[in-house]
Amino acid sequence: MNKNKATIHDISKALGIDSSTVSRALNDSPRVSKKTKGKILKKAKELGYQRNSLASSLRTSKTQTIAVVLPRISRHFFARVIAGIEETAHKAGYNVIICQSLDNLEREKKIISTLISNRVDGIMISISMETTNYEHLEAYKKLDKPIVFFDRPCELPNCINVNIDNFQASFDATQHLISRGCKHIVHFSGSQKIELYRQRKAGYIAALEKNNIKINDHYIFESNLSEEDGIRAAKKILRLKNIDGLYSSNDTAAISAMKYFKSKRVRVPEDIAVVGFNNDPISAVIEPSLTTINQPALEIGKMASNLLFEQINNKTKTTKIQFRLLNSELIIRHSSKK
Amino acid sequence: MNKNKATIHDISKALGIDSSTVSRALNDSPRVSKKTKGKILKKAKELGYQRNSLASSLRTSKTQTIAVVLPRISRHFFARVIAGIEETAHKAGYNVIICQSLDNLEREKKIISTLISNRVDGIMISISMETTNYEHLEAYKKLDKPIVFFDRPCELPNCINVNIDNFQASFDATQHLISRGCKHIVHFSGSQKIELYRQRKAGYIAALEKNNIKINDHYIFESNLSEEDGIRAAKKILRLKNIDGLYSSNDTAAISAMKYFKSKRVRVPEDIAVVGFNNDPISAVIEPSLTTINQPALEIGKMASNLLFEQINNKTKTTKIQFRLLNSELIIRHSSKK
Repeated sequence: MNKNKATIHDISKALGIDSSTVSRALNDSPRVSKKTKGKILKKAKELGYQRNSLASSLRTSKTQTIAVVLPRISRHFFARVIAGIEETAHKAGYNVIICQSLDNLEREKKIISTLISNRVDGIMISISMETTNYEHLEAYKKLDKPIVFFDRPCELPNCINVNIDNFQASFDATQHLISRGCKHIVHFSGSQKIELYRQRKAGYIAALEKNNIKINDHYIFESNLSEEDGIRAAKKILRLKNIDGLYSSNDTAAISAMKYFKSKRVRVPEDIAVVGFNNDPISAVIEPSLTTINQPALEIGKMASNLLFEQINNKTKTTKIQFRLLNSELIIRHSSKK
Repeated sequence: MNKNKATIHDISKALGIDSSTVSRALNDSPRVSKKTKGKILKKAKELGYQRNSLASSLRTSKTQTIAVVLPRISRHFFARVIAGIEETAHKAGYNVIICQSLDNLEREKKIISTLISNRVDGIMISISMETTNYEHLEAYKKLDKPIVFFDRPCELPNCINVNIDNFQASFDATQHLISRGCKHIVHFSGSQKIELYRQRKAGYIAALEKNNIKINDHYIFESNLSEEDGIRAAKKILRLKNIDGLYSSNDTAAISAMKYFKSKRVRVPEDIAVVGFNNDPISAVIEPSLTTINQPALEIGKMASNLLFEQINNKTKTTKIQFRLLNSELIIRHSSKK
C-alpha cells in the first residue's frame, strides 16, 4: 500500500471502526471518546494517512460568518441588538445569520446543531425561556469556538455575558413608584426559571424592603408577559381593590393592562401608576405615554459582537464567566406622573 | 494504479488542471465551464474515479435548512412574514436561517454566497432596493435549488413570486381619498427602480385618471420613505398650499408627515386626509389613527414557504415565472374620515 495514499477507509478497516467515526475522530469531533480518538490517531500515523488538504481547509478555515440566536426577532429590543451586531460585523467583513428559538429548547438545540454543521465562527445567543441545561451549547464550545451571551444571563463556564444590571433597573423602577406615593405595588414577573426575571423580581423586592413596605406574595404575578397575560393580571388587580402601582417586566403586559384599566374607567396614573420595561416604540405613543426602562440595545449588540470578534481573531480565551454590565435608563413619562 | 482508488489529484495530474477545479467539476459547480467539465468527467471515468461517498453525501444530501433573505427584520411586515415561514417550516421539520441585506446589493451577494456554501435547501427572498441584476441568484438556481420571491417582485426565469396586488391596493387607497372629496392628492413613492413601487405609483395614477383628475408630477415625491423623508416631503406639501390628500407607500413616512402637520397646526383629516401602507402596529395607536393597507403578511410567509417545500420535496419544477397574488385590505381609520 502506498503510505501516502492511505484513506479513512483503510483506517476503518484496520481497526474495525465505522468510517464515519474515523472521520469524526480525525476532525477532533466531541462526539468521539478520547480513548477511541487516541486509537484512531495512532493507526492513522502508522498507515501514513494524510488529510485531503482541500477538504481539510474547508473544515478548518474561517467561514467569516457569525450567528445570532434569540427568542423572537419581532421584539423591538432584539431587532435593535441585531442592528448593533450587523454594524460591527459589517465593518469586520463578517456575514450575520439570525435564528429564532421562539423560546423553545428543542428548536434552539436544532439551531445549534445546524450552526455546528455550517461551521459558523462564533455565536451570540439570548437563550430560550426553556433553556435550563446547556449541553447543546457545550458541544459548540468544545469545537473551540466562542459563544457570547446577551440579554439573558447564562452561567456556562468560560463564556462572556453582556447584559444590563437588571436588579438595579428594577430597583430604580420600583423606587420611582414609591417616591410618587405608591404603597401597594404589583409586579408582573416573567418565568422564575430565567435568571433575568429572577434579578428583576429581586430588584422590586429590595426596593420595597428598603422603604419598609411589606412584601405581599399576592402582588407578584408570574407569566409569559404576553398581551393576554397582561389582561388576566389586570382583572386580578382590580379585584384586589387597593393597588396603586404596577411595575411590569415588559411593556407588552403593562400596555395591555393599561388598556384594560381604561376600559373599566380606572385612571392611569391617578388611580394606578404604571412602569414598564423595554421602551418599545409604542410606549411613547399610547395615551398616557408609558414610563419604562430603556436598555442600550444597540450598544449591547456592538459590545457582544466586538467581544466575539476579539475571541475569534486574537484567540483570547476567557477562562472564567465574565459579566459585562451596561447601564439602562428610566424614562419617566405620563403613566407614573402622580 | 488501483483503479478504484484514483483520487482527484490523479485526475488533476493527468490533465494538468488544478485539483480544486477538478473537485468543482465533479460537484457540477457552475464556476467550471461545460467544456472543462466534460474533459474532467471523461478522465475520471477512464481512471475509475469513485467519489468518497461520505463527502459526497455531505454535499448532496438535504440540510433541512431554508433561508429567508430580506432587507430589514425590524419592519413589522417582514417580522410577520417570517412568523408565517417559521410556522410552516417547523411543521415540515426544517430550520430557518434569516439574513438581512439592509437594502444593499453587495451584502445580498455575500449572503447568497454564504448560503451556497452552507448548502441550504431553498431560499425565500425579498430583494434589496439596489438589486437590479440577478447573477448571484442565478448562481444559486444553477445548483438546481429553488428560490421563491416575496413582497418585491423579481422577473428571474423559472421562479415563483408571492405578492399582493400592489396596483390594485394603491388604486383602492387613492380612490378612497377621492371619494372623501380630495382633489389634490400627493403620493409618497419609493424608488422607481423597484417594481413594487412602480406598481404602487401606477395604481395611484390610474385612480386619478379614472376620476378625470389631472396627473401633476409635482405631487409625486420619490424617496426611501424614511422618517426624515416624510418630514422633508411634508414641508414641501405645506408650501404647495392646496394639497388636501396624501397617499404614502408606507406608514413610516405617512406618520412622520402627520406629526409635522400637527406641529404646524395643519389638521388631519380636515385639512389633509392621509392614507398609509403596511398597517404597522403604531398606525392603530397614533392620534388620529391612520387609514392604511393591511397586507396578509403571515399568509404570504406561509404560501411562500409551502411553495418552496413543494419544489424541494416533489421536485416540481417551475418552467416559467409565476405570480401568486394575495388580497390586501384597506383599513379605514380616522386619518381619512372627512
